[in-house]
This record gives sequence, structure tokens and C-alpha cells, in this order.
Amino acid sequence: MKNIKPLILVVNDDGIDSMGIRTLIDSMKEVGDVYVVAPDSNRSGASHAITLDKEIYIKKIDKKINEFSCSGTPVDCVKMAINKILPRLPDLCVSGVNHGANHSINILYSGTAHAAIEGTIKGVPSIAFSHVSYDKSLNMNDFKQFIIKISLHVLKAKLPLGVTLNINFPDLPFRQIKGVRICNQGDGHWVEDYKLKKKNNLVAYYWITGHFEDKIHQKKSDLWAAQNGYISIVPIGLDYTDSGSISLFKFLEDDF
Amino acid sequence: MKNIKPLILVVNDDGIDSMGIRTLIDSMKEVGDVYVVAPDSNRSGASHAITLDKEIYIKKIDKKINEFSCSGTPVDCVKMAINKILPRLPDLCVSGVNHGANHSINILYSGTAHAAIEGTIKGVPSIAFSHVSYDKSLNMNDFKQFIIKISLHVLKAKLPLGVTLNINFPDLPFRQIKGVRICNQGDGHWVEDYKLKKKNNLVAYYWITGHFEDKIHQKKSDLWAAQNGYISIVPIGLDYTDSGSISLFKFLEDDF
Repeated sequence: MKNIKPLILVVNDDGIDSMGIRTLIDSMKEVGDVYVVAPDSNRSGASHAITLDKEIYIKKIDKKINEFSCSGTPVDCVKMAINKILPRLPDLCVSGVNHGANHSINILYSGTAHAAIEGTIKGVPSIAFSHVSYDKSLNMNDFKQFIIKISLHVLKAKLPLGVTLNINFPDLPFRQIKGVRICNQGDGHWVEDYKLKKKNNLVAYYWITGHFEDKIHQKKSDLWAAQNGYISIVPIGLDYTDSGSISLFKFLEDDF
Repeated sequence: MKNIKPLILVVNDDGIDSMGIRTLIDSMKEVGDVYVVAPDSNRSGASHAITLDKEIYIKKIDKKINEFSCSGTPVDCVKMAINKILPRLPDLCVSGVNHGANHSINILYSGTAHAAIEGTIKGVPSIAFSHVSYDKSLNMNDFKQFIIKISLHVLKAKLPLGVTLNINFPDLPFRQIKGVRICNQGDGHWVEDYKLKKKNNLVAYYWITGHFEDKIHQKKSDLWAAQNGYISIVPIGLDYTDSGSISLFKFLEDDF
């Protein structure tokens, strides 16, 4: 009987030309048959956005390899891949490696994380990988061994229904990393400061700037892990309901 | 002592010219001092996306009223409003009224819901309103009494830290609605079918189509409410962690 290799979808939000996705592609080639569908340019901050109002194009980078650039968002890439490009539903969807932290509140804004979440919605075991460093030329070769190992684990054991793994690497050489921690999402957040660039009569143009508030309030959060030399793995879900609050609002059912 | 009126931020994702935001603005004028900061065009499906790679402009619609159109996403609108436009942190942020359902998995894609979520991140009690009908000319005047009542309640009682209210109106005349239900997020989801529009050598252009799978698996979900004539209120949180899965992955801490 022929041994069928796992089918793997690779996606990201930094764009198909980023260093991080090359690390992920190289790693996945050790694991299975790889299809890459990634944005044609940087779509950082795209969250779970989809393109509803215009055409999306898919361009095969080279006739001989299964790499495709897409004019849409990271989530569009996953939908298009599963709907039009891959020969069957993949066995694994991996997203990243993102250049920059996707711990704490970052996960809400992250296209990398939400591409993986879309994989989960479609029933595919999915993992998002991010490196806390924003250095887009960072060599992540030493992280491949970890990426391969966790991917093989997920291929074998699958993931609970609706669960995505959100993984962040701390900003350390791989050999200095202390280990892996299963974490909660931390509560670090951004404080923006929009800079005025120019102003006409009724129109003002701004550029986003800001800083990240990284005071740790929760031990064993992904923010704590990043600051203490651990790789964080956060299992994230698809249900936004804050179940603990349901009873607080029950009285409204009688009030209207 | 002067009675200070509540300061209210109104936002949406359908754009500042939509019917739904007019319903919300008219309602909020009965409640407090209103600032409107909304996208200059339809940004449905924008989720929690933010603009990182280009300038955002803010245009005052009229010198005499506090309505501003924004070239960015719904979340950009909230960030810009709080950072640059409003005289102080608002007492309430309301988003919508969206033309179309934001129950079930829709909340992940919704710009309307995520604008309210961004309000919550900034510490402002925030509510997202959506009407299940996609009819953009729907007259929602009869819903104003409910919008005002729930807004006054939230202004008075506030909301638990990190909780946003996601409210969906069923597709019925207001007088036929059976009541209000506090719900969980339902598990309805989309099945896409991208249509090929044209194809060149290595490039193919697609347009998204699809249908919503609305089979009900959970009683008392927001999907159930929409199909059974109730207004749904789902308290949603900011923490994506699937806490129930943490213990399942703990062994990985020893495995690496």
C-alpha cells in the first residue's frame, strides 16, 4: 500500500516573500506535501478580514511548484486554498512564522493567527507560529526542529474540535530558550498615538504609532512566557461567548 | 451643578451613509452627546483589521455637526475617535445597526462587532447592534425604543471588564418579536463557493459567493434566537484561550 504523505497548507500575513514563511515552508517539506497560498504583499493587522467587495486573484508563482500568491487577506488565502487550489482538505494548516509578537491582545489584530483560525473553522488542525522579534531579516533556521516536532505531534494526535494552537517564540537564540509553556492569552495591549501628517480644511491625515504595554498581571500567560525565555503555546477557541457573564444579564429577558 | 450628558461614540462597518447607522445616531441623540466616526465606504467583513501600512484620513462631514468619515477600518475609526477626535473617553460605544446577521461565526468576520470590541479594549462599555435582514433600505425606526432602553441600562450599570454585548434583531416587524434572550454564540457557519471570473496564464480571478449553514445544534444560541423570533444578546469576551484544553497539552511542557 502506498504511504500517502500528509497534505499541508502554509499561509502567513507578512506576504509570500517574507523570511518567516520560507522557514515554515522548509520545515513542512520535511513533513509532507506542501501547498503555499499567501498574500502578495504584507497584510499584517488584517485579523479575520475577508474580501467581499472585489475580485481576488490567485497567481501561481512558478509552473513547477505549488506556491500561489493571493491579492486577498490571510483568511481569503485559506478559503481560496481549500475551495479552489488544494486537491483535498489538508491534514494540517500552518501559518507564519510571523515577524513580531502575536501574544496577548495581538491575537485579535493578527492575520497570521486568524489564517490558522480559519483553517480550524474549516475543520483542519491548525497552528499559528510567531517570533517575538520584529526583525524581518531574522534567521529562524534553528527553530525548524521545534516547528517540525510540534507539527508531527498535531498531525498524529489532531486537535480538539474548534481549537487552534497559537505559538510564540521568545526573542532568544534557540539554544537559550528554557522550554515550552502551555499558557493563557496575556493581557498586554497597545496604546496608540496617531501622528498628524497633514491637514486641509475638513480633512486630516494620520499615521499610526504606539507602544505596547507589557506589564505582566497574569503569571503563566503568553506574555509572561515571552519575557521569561519560554516558547508559549495557547490553545484558542472559536466561541467568543463570555459564559461567566450570561447569568448577570438574564434579568434582561424579563425586562423587555 | 450642571447635568453632564453621557458622551457616546457611534460607529459601524457599512459606512457613514448607511441606513442602519442613521437609526443608531437618531436613537443615541435621545440619550447623550453623540460623535459619529464611521468608514467612508462599506467595510463589511473587516473584522478586527487595522491600517498599519498607509495614512488614514478623517473628514468632518459638516462644520456644525460631530460626524466624521474615516478612510480606515471600523477598528481604526474607534482608535482614531478615542485618540484624536472625542473630547474625552466616551461613556458608551455603539456600533451598527448592521445590515445583516452577526450571530454565530459571523462575529469573527464582522467589522460592526469588532468596532464595539475595540471600544471594550479601550475601557468603554460597548454594544454591537445588527439586524438579520440584509435589506439595506430596511426601515428600523421601530427598533429605536429597544436600542435606547438597552443603552440607558448599560450606561447606568456598565458592563463587566472586557465584556461587549453583541445584539442581533430577528427578521420580524418589531411588534411581532417575542422577547429578548441572553444567548451563547451559535455554531452556524458559511460555506463559500468562489466563482471564477477570468483566467490568464498563471493568474485566476475569483468572486466570493456562498451560503450560510444554519442548522441549529445548540438551543438558546443566538442563531436559535434569530430563527425563533427573539432578540439575542450575547456577552462576548476578549480572551480567546480555550481554557478547557490547557490540561490536554500540559504534557508538551515535558516533551521539548
